[in-house]
Amino acid sequence: MLDAFKTQIKLRFAYLQQARIVIAISGGVDSVVLAYLCKGLKLNFALAHCNFNLRGDESNADEDFVLELGEHLDVEVFIQNFDTQAYADEHKRSIQMAARELRYNWFSELAKQLHFAYILTAHHADDNLETFLINFTRGTGLNGLTGIPEINDNVVRPLLKFSREQIEDYAKTNDIEWREDSSNSSRKYLRNKLRHELVPILKEINPQLLDSFQSTLNNLNDTADIVEESLNAVAKRAIVSIGKNGITYKVSEFKKVNNPKAYLFEMFKDYGFTEWKDILNLLDAETGKYVKSHTHRLIKHREFLILTLHNSNTLDAIALSANEVQSGKCETSIGNFFFNEVNVGLKNSKDCIYVDKDKLSFPLELRVWRNGDMFYPLGMKGKKRVSKYLKDEKLSVVEKENTWVLTSEDKIIWVVGLRADNQFKVTGDTKQILKIELS
Amino acid sequence: MLDAFKTQIKLRFAYLQQARIVIAISGGVDSVVLAYLCKGLKLNFALAHCNFNLRGDESNADEDFVLELGEHLDVEVFIQNFDTQAYADEHKRSIQMAARELRYNWFSELAKQLHFAYILTAHHADDNLETFLINFTRGTGLNGLTGIPEINDNVVRPLLKFSREQIEDYAKTNDIEWREDSSNSSRKYLRNKLRHELVPILKEINPQLLDSFQSTLNNLNDTADIVEESLNAVAKRAIVSIGKNGITYKVSEFKKVNNPKAYLFEMFKDYGFTEWKDILNLLDAETGKYVKSHTHRLIKHREFLILTLHNSNTLDAIALSANEVQSGKCETSIGNFFFNEVNVGLKNSKDCIYVDKDKLSFPLELRVWRNGDMFYPLGMKGKKRVSKYLKDEKLSVVEKENTWVLTSEDKIIWVVGLRADNQFKVTGDTKQILKIELS
Repeated sequence: MLDAFKTQIKLRFAYLQQARIVIAISGGVDSVVLAYLCKGLKLNFALAHCNFNLRGDESNADEDFVLELGEHLDVEVFIQNFDTQAYADEHKRSIQMAARELRYNWFSELAKQLHFAYILTAHHADDNLETFLINFTRGTGLNGLTGIPEINDNVVRPLLKFSREQIEDYAKTNDIEWREDSSNSSRKYLRNKLRHELVPILKEINPQLLDSFQSTLNNLNDTADIVEESLNAVAKRAIVSIGKNGITYKVSEFKKVNNPKAYLFEMFKDYGFTEWKDILNLLDAETGKYVKSHTHRLIKHREFLILTLHNSNTLDAIALSANEVQSGKCETSIGNFFFNEVNVGLKNSKDCIYVDKDKLSFPLELRVWRNGDMFYPLGMKGKKRVSKYLKDEKLSVVEKENTWVLTSEDKIIWVVGLRADNQFKVTGDTKQILKIELS
Repeated sequence: MLDAFKTQIKLRFAYLQQARIVIAISGGVDSVVLAYLCKGLKLNFALAHCNFNLRGDESNADEDFVLELGEHLDVEVFIQNFDTQAYADEHKRSIQMAARELRYNWFSELAKQLHFAYILTAHHADDNLETFLINFTRGTGLNGLTGIPEINDNVVRPLLKFSREQIEDYAKTNDIEWREDSSNSSRKYLRNKLRHELVPILKEINPQLLDSFQSTLNNLNDTADIVEESLNAVAKRAIVSIGKNGITYKVSEFKKVNNPKAYLFEMFKDYGFTEWKDILNLLDAETGKYVKSHTHRLIKHREFLILTLHNSNTLDAIALSANEVQSGKCETSIGNFFFNEVNVGLKNSKDCIYVDKDKLSFPLELRVWRNGDMFYPLGMKGKKRVSKYLKDEKLSVVEKENTWVLTSEDKIIWVVGLRADNQFKVTGDTKQILKIELS
């Protein structure tokens, strides 16, 4: 196998021969064999081991084993201990997801800080097959069937074309020791079921299963390239703007294609949506209709779809004391407000208004507008509901949600960025003019 | 199940309620239950059964069973007997493929002749899953993973969303009898292995497997729509001409895409090619290089790829006796030749020449040109190899292969459709002028 590995490295990963690399090592047979193979090729590598502290003594014994292996191979070893359970609880992740995030984050950091050009992991062909089958049993799309990538970013998996059998044979033939993971987690249970029950039947049906599977993966990855190119082309035509309020898409572009749902799914699947029929219906929905996921919303606005994060502006109001206004500046998530006393009141603009300071009662308040808010739009007659005003201004749902008001004792001074109120305007009687500016 | 079936028909196949349909029936539980369900809905249907005569008495007992079922349900029954083995031998098909072709051909014919609007088959969700798994074990691409279509042309499969279990339960609950197929063909063996060993494990892992699988299929079919649309767009840009010599594609269009191999594969996979790397290399190959499958060739010609059937013109030469020429007409695969004696020899054109009849020795011969052929091109000085002439005329490989010559005692009279020979031209001494025309 060393020869086959050498060939792989030469033909497909030649750059590893010159680079400083780090091997992600669990202590299991796959990563241990990977370390021996790299040693055999005299690559310049270190070992990095995560102790997730999930299996008590066993976890610590794994750590010790990796330390010894490092000594035996005469390479550097990095160990990191994690409180995986705490991380999972805090970030609401499954233990598996938590371990995965911790692992990849630490490896990236390590690579960055210590200038490792590549991180090697020991995934092999059977891992790939099992992942395919797990995704398949759960229900998936093309993306779940294209396998683990051999390379992404600086993570390289040089064993991906080798089978578990080849790796174990190499370990046995060369008297290489490794650690068995005795854990019985549900993931492990599932993998074992596939490994010991399902895959053997598949291999009985086709002894060349892994080869056939590889060609299936190649074909599916080629198809995925076509899909990606096609999506990019549609996205390029559909996207009107990418801004702080989200990404705006032309509805018409989705209506031009044969199967709009297919494109909508591919385009928005990474944002946690599940209700694809509802999203399809958005194309013909009224302005203001939307579909939401845990993190995002897709909103119909006239002839556009707007993808946006959930509104996080419903925070408490910001109170501005007389002193703060005196200090001249207030930073907020929608920009910096500047307050200056000036001698002459000029014409208001969208982002800059002049008010009669003596009419203000402190503290002022900055907050998102609410249903029920009323104001006297400068230059119009009488009172108007803010909701009605925003609608007449033809703001999108997202823009509406991101509209703030500056108030004084619940009276609106300014619908920020849009219109000042009549009640605070500068008149002939005004003694102190306050210029309020957003930038 | 009858209610669920009723709902399916109402929601998705309402047109079956008004139409004259024919059910493809084997006598197995699936098709028998389909017949009972259709009877329950009072659909207007007949039964059609193929006796493939592959299992002796058992085949005949199946036929009898279907006849009795027809009587019991009070519907018309059509039976067709096939000598499947003979057909398979003659057409070099596997028994499975032969049976499939015979079956679908007969059903189409029956539907056409007797005005059945739809042919119903009893494929169900487990069939679909097994087909997916069979394709997967053999190695496949997206097309092998998108399942059996619910509808194609006039074939409808209204049980495709039902499981085998539902169908068998319905049969048992309603005391419906059916015939078990005891055959042990290799296909049957494979299906049984999947059905009794593999699928149960998958269902243990996910009891909702068929539902998940359905959503996988929906996703993959959506993806297939994207791919198809994308391919059509590339094909539209790439195809220069479709003619009797084949389909001509611009190489440049394949070079514009991110992954040319992916598009080449999808575009040419139905023509039996297997050497995709070679096809990819054609993009940069010299004129004249080609890759062939059993039926087709893809040829590089300048900045084009030409897809063509294998040349079938290497047939024996056609001999033309004096009498045949006298008769005035000769039909060939490249067109009709007309021979007429005329009084005046006009200027030759590509498709029409005038020769001195007395210089001809009968029989003349019509054949594809061969290496070594020489002629004296009319209007040029001296002798030229036909191969050189065709090259200088910048004919593609396909056009060259489809070039014929008309000869007299091995002397070329005419490189058909291109150039006559000096030796047979009309001169002042000519007594009889023969006009030869191709149309």
